[in-house]
Amino acid sequence: MKSVFRSVIYTKLSFPIRPLNPNPHRAAPLALLPWRAAGGLSTLSSMASDVSGSNAPSSPTAAALEKQFEVFRHQLDGSGGLRERIRGVASEIESVTRIIQSSLLLIHQSRPIPEVVEKAKGQIPVLRELYSKLAEIIQEYPGQYYRYHGDWRTETQTVVSLLAFMHYLETESLLLHAEAEEKLGLNPVEFGLDVEDYLVGICFMSNDLPRYVVNQVTAGDYDCPRKVLKFLTDLHAAFRMLNLRNDFLRKKFDGMKYDLRRVEEVYYDVKIRGLAAKENSGGDQGDEQPSS
Amino acid sequence: MKSVFRSVIYTKLSFPIRPLNPNPHRAAPLALLPWRAAGGLSTLSSMASDVSGSNAPSSPTAAALEKQFEVFRHQLDGSGGLRERIRGVASEIESVTRIIQSSLLLIHQSRPIPEVVEKAKGQIPVLRELYSKLAEIIQEYPGQYYRYHGDWRTETQTVVSLLAFMHYLETESLLLHAEAEEKLGLNPVEFGLDVEDYLVGICFMSNDLPRYVVNQVTAGDYDCPRKVLKFLTDLHAAFRMLNLRNDFLRKKFDGMKYDLRRVEEVYYDVKIRGLAAKENSGGDQGDEQPSS
Amino acid sequence: MKSVFRSVIYTKLSFPIRPLNPNPHRAAPLALLPWRAAGGLSTLSSMASDVSGSNAPSSPTAAALEKQFEVFRHQLDGSGGLRERIRGVASEIESVTRIIQSSLLLIHQSRPIPEVVEKAKGQIPVLRELYSKLAEIIQEYPGQYYRYHGDWRTETQTVVSLLAFMHYLETESLLLHAEAEEKLGLNPVEFGLDVEDYLVGICFMSNDLPRYVVNQVTAGDYDCPRKVLKFLTDLHAAFRMLNLRNDFLRKKFDGMKYDLRRVEEVYYDVKIRGLAAKENSGGDQGDEQPSS
Amino acid sequence: MKSVFRSVIYTKLSFPIRPLNPNPHRAAPLALLPWRAAGGLSTLSSMASDVSGSNAPSSPTAAALEKQFEVFRHQLDGSGGLRERIRGVASEIESVTRIIQSSLLLIHQSRPIPEVVEKAKGQIPVLRELYSKLAEIIQEYPGQYYRYHGDWRTETQTVVSLLAFMHYLETESLLLHAEAEEKLGLNPVEFGLDVEDYLVGICFMSNDLPRYVVNQVTAGDYDCPRKVLKFLTDLHAAFRMLNLRNDFLRKKFDGMKYDLRRVEEVYYDVKIRGLAAKENSGGDQGDEQPSS
Repeated sequence: MKSVFRSVIYTKLSFPIRPLNPNPHRAAPLALLPWRAAGGLSTLSSMASDVSGSNAPSSPTAAALEKQFEVFRHQLDGSGGLRERIRGVASEIESVTRIIQSSLLLIHQSRPIPEVVEKAKGQIPVLRELYSKLAEIIQEYPGQYYRYHGDWRTETQTVVSLLAFMHYLETESLLLHAEAEEKLGLNPVEFGLDVEDYLVGICFMSNDLPRYVVNQVTAGDYDCPRKVLKFLTDLHAAFRMLNLRNDFLRKKFDGMKYDLRRVEEVYYDVKIRGLAAKENSGGDQGDEQPSS
Repeated sequence: MKSVFRSVIYTKLSFPIRPLNPNPHRAAPLALLPWRAAGGLSTLSSMASDVSGSNAPSSPTAAALEKQFEVFRHQLDGSGGLRERIRGVASEIESVTRIIQSSLLLIHQSRPIPEVVEKAKGQIPVLRELYSKLAEIIQEYPGQYYRYHGDWRTETQTVVSLLAFMHYLETESLLLHAEAEEKLGLNPVEFGLDVEDYLVGICFMSNDLPRYVVNQVTAGDYDCPRKVLKFLTDLHAAFRMLNLRNDFLRKKFDGMKYDLRRVEEVYYDVKIRGLAAKENSGGDQGDEQPSS
Repeated sequence: MKSVFRSVIYTKLSFPIRPLNPNPHRAAPLALLPWRAAGGLSTLSSMASDVSGSNAPSSPTAAALEKQFEVFRHQLDGSGGLRERIRGVASEIESVTRIIQSSLLLIHQSRPIPEVVEKAKGQIPVLRELYSKLAEIIQEYPGQYYRYHGDWRTETQTVVSLLAFMHYLETESLLLHAEAEEKLGLNPVEFGLDVEDYLVGICFMSNDLPRYVVNQVTAGDYDCPRKVLKFLTDLHAAFRMLNLRNDFLRKKFDGMKYDLRRVEEVYYDVKIRGLAAKENSGGDQGDEQPSS
Repeated sequence: MKSVFRSVIYTKLSFPIRPLNPNPHRAAPLALLPWRAAGGLSTLSSMASDVSGSNAPSSPTAAALEKQFEVFRHQLDGSGGLRERIRGVASEIESVTRIIQSSLLLIHQSRPIPEVVEKAKGQIPVLRELYSKLAEIIQEYPGQYYRYHGDWRTETQTVVSLLAFMHYLETESLLLHAEAEEKLGLNPVEFGLDVEDYLVGICFMSNDLPRYVVNQVTAGDYDCPRKVLKFLTDLHAAFRMLNLRNDFLRKKFDGMKYDLRRVEEVYYDVKIRGLAAKENSGGDQGDEQPSS
């Protein structure tokens, strides 16, 4: 069945200009379909005549019905097969994210950042490979990106959160959308990174920051809270400007507020004990204002 | 705000060849965006420098963050506005389906088919008009058909069920997918009828048949059950060939089995009372034609 | 406390012209409130000074806070007391509807309609009395009808369904909204019947009709299905024209479709057995059309 | 359709004295309705006669049914349109609150209060404008304030919380209900601020105080916890006097207890480290004034 289906696809792709087509189904003109001749639906046509009690061959109408459902059958099988291929790749992506997560966990044990990140970065080429596979599959079905989007969306959000966390560790700044696409080898013209997936991924990354700050302070890095707080404050303020109508994204963003508060509390603890002061000479003084 | 967003779209459309782009977001290159110059996010950049206590102008990173979220803000507003436009049209489609349903209700009171259908058909041009509006909106966003599909899907399933019911009343045969597209003025290359929506619509139509049969028999048309049974038997057999992985569609199809049973029971009632035989002399022969 | 509250109310009612006031709370000008002098919040003012460590009397700000919450306390107690009064009446209405329902149950045992309805009608004056009580309570709080509406809404929907069922039994027609108001002694200017409550009540009545039809046929009244079907068909078609955005009402209306189908099936049973014919000479013949 | 609806409204408003009417529906006397003459429901009346098979003109009852539902249809459309207008304004209010929130976020980064509040206050005239729009819409429907209240309630609670936070920052005292109404240009006689919405808003404001205190201490303002604690203690005590039967409000108030505890802990941290004492020399005396 798969090979039959592929031939349909090739047939389709040989059509001249159909750039924006949202509906792939017209791509299988009945005349070209090899299985048409198979007569596999003789059951159906005989059924059609049962009720009327006649034994004559089925009417043109019955034949058209039969033809249409035969086409649908192949399309649904094809679409089901496609879904399985997508899910296969998505599940490989998920495996890689688990490996990256394992590597990054070491950061909470205060291992040196370069060492930890280096190891995690080793998986990025694997991710690129997998996304390129995914893009290839999706490009066989022009205009269907959002039809199957749900099948790789969760994994991609996790990928973004991990890349953004690594990026923060290395640069103390936010991984931008374009940078994430670049790291994954995504080409926005062919197969891009959905903006809402990017934003959800960033929220997920934010959820890891309070834990990171707590463990860094435990390990004696008293300047970490200030830096993370600055980063998270800016990020939170930037999100605040967005009019989030997507319920899932809005909920994830609401969680960022708690991350922010937690980091503020850690910074507070460090400050009130006079620990921050040692590391933080000069920079903070501007904050201190006389209480009114 | 809307006008700003529209200008982005025009900008986008002027790009040379991006036929399959699944991701509209790359379409707003920062350099081209008119609002870039506005500096409206000076708050944000100043924020960025607050925690560090410096009064220096914001860093390149903060500026990039700011830029990115400003772009997102416009994109999300734009996508929200688009969704509102789509829902506006979908709600007009829904109003038209209510009018058609009201007209078709008369069939259950045994009004002559031509009279009933004629009135309902009067609304088809209105539907064409609305779908053409929808197609126009969607075509502004190449490759986004399935992104917003959920916003008109239910209404379209109802439309298919009504068209298919009218078609059955007139022809005693199934409205094919291509015929449905044609009636609605849909062009599969630009804005087609999703096959699963079509199939769900056909299941909905099937749900109306038992009631139709019951009321026809009540009104004295004893041949109706036989004809509907033949139609529904074929339709059910055709569906049976499909490997339905879509949960919603599978559930709707499961309902068709009950419609079939109910029509069988009515046919049985009519037969066992000798009512069918009297009427059913010759009228059927016309159904038997050689299959092409 | 209640007496204090009542005095506030009287004070309020003596205000000259405040016809549209949606907010009753301004009605308690601080200067007029007798409890102001009570000094009941001495706890509060002393608390206010605790933290600052001073023993001086509270500041004007603290006094204003205290005053405001004292007013709120009385308002909330008043509004709580009002709610209890409303619920008391609503619960009495509910008792009466149970009595009416008991009386009407006899109709399913084929007792003569006049006898059954006469008994049920005996409770209508009690209902009038209770609604007049309710109206009196609500009129003390101009513009608050919809604030407390939820507290009598369910009972009223049941009342409408019972009145409409009795009305159908007597007249074979729909109890109109204005007729329902009249029966209950409601004056739309002062305390009317909410249209959505009326419509929900009518849907509830429809739910009783299939059972009524079945029992009437059992008792040998073969013309009942035809008459109820006509009534329900018209009612259903009339509802169909409404654009129901109220989710609860829409759901109830969806149920009416099943009532209609059930009645159609009973009519079908009667017809196919030639039972209807006896009672129904001439009237039906017009329905019989040659099958096409 | 909208213009038709508006004309009904004007008709209604020209009625002499109906100040307290809780039920807007009587406001459309059939004789005055322009669409009455349209005969658009001829379908319905003909339907009514279908089942009985008669061709006579519809009965007076069927005509009354038709009339009533035609009126309902326009009323429901009108009420749906009204709801959309309200939601439109509520959504604009929500946008403004997001802008204010963004401005106020800077307070957590220890920016000078006057600067932060000044910017946020710039949005108050916009809010006044929007509430005046809302009031205008609601006043077209006397006595319906609480019917549509749910459509602007959440936004209003947020508005109150923001105004109260700004007010606290400026005055270290509670924004009173009457002051909130004044700031928003609300007139309790025409369109007031619901007391429970005000109280919920105050609870929301309380939720922001622990974070404010933490960040102020971090920035070196060691007197802030004492002042906020005094404020929150009084506020909590005042709420405690209320008999809260509204579940939502009660739950929000329960949250205030946690805010209070957190502020107490911060005050404790500051005190136990001897930080509070240094800053807290004389500044407090001004709080102690004779209570009026």
